[in-house]
Amino acid sequence: MSAVGQVGSLDEGPWHELAPGVRASPLFGEGAMLNLLDFEPGSRVERHSHPHEQLGMVVEGELVLEVDGVAHRLGPGGCWQIPGGVVHAAWTEPGTRCRALDVFQPVREDYRERFGQ
Amino acid sequence: MSAVGQVGSLDEGPWHELAPGVRASPLFGEGAMLNLLDFEPGSRVERHSHPHEQLGMVVEGELVLEVDGVAHRLGPGGCWQIPGGVVHAAWTEPGTRCRALDVFQPVREDYRERFGQ
Repeated sequence: MSAVGQVGSLDEGPWHELAPGVRASPLFGEGAMLNLLDFEPGSRVERHSHPHEQLGMVVEGELVLEVDGVAHRLGPGGCWQIPGGVVHAAWTEPGTRCRALDVFQPVREDYRERFGQ
Repeated sequence: MSAVGQVGSLDEGPWHELAPGVRASPLFGEGAMLNLLDFEPGSRVERHSHPHEQLGMVVEGELVLEVDGVAHRLGPGGCWQIPGGVVHAAWTEPGTRCRALDVFQPVREDYRERFGQ
């Protein structure tokens, strides 16, 4: 990482287990953060909500994203903006992997603690 | 786009010219935004700064990102966090394309105006 800001590689991790079969590599900024996610086939982040606004995009593969009870099947370039407090979930079908980049604002301080960063 | 939040595809645009050979597809959130960028070979976003914090990741190809005068060559998964006010630039070498996802917080209201969104 450089002296002014941060430059590195999310691909190189460190990776953390977010859910069974779902690994996460975060970059913590000041008012926002990135979280690169790799979903193995048939893996799932269960329904949940948080006060943070969430945006993101599918990088590779296919993801099913459920927002407020409505499921969306998203391929590369598929994107989302989920206001704080809205219940959502995400999963891959069996046989399908997914790499997705999530963004949170403000920073998920719970992730910083959980990931030890 | 769904009623709660937004779900769509950055790949489908609409695309806007950010610089010669550089096109941008934005998603405007509440406190942050995404901006998918496609750089043609040998294209460049000249040195500039803005008060917004910027984060991002290379999705495909290779990007040279200069932050505060230091150039970094980044492949897929290469990431950055640039505090507001720090001068930066980005370019591709001849023969190399790049797709990158930028994140700004807060929202770039100048982009909303520039892109007519």
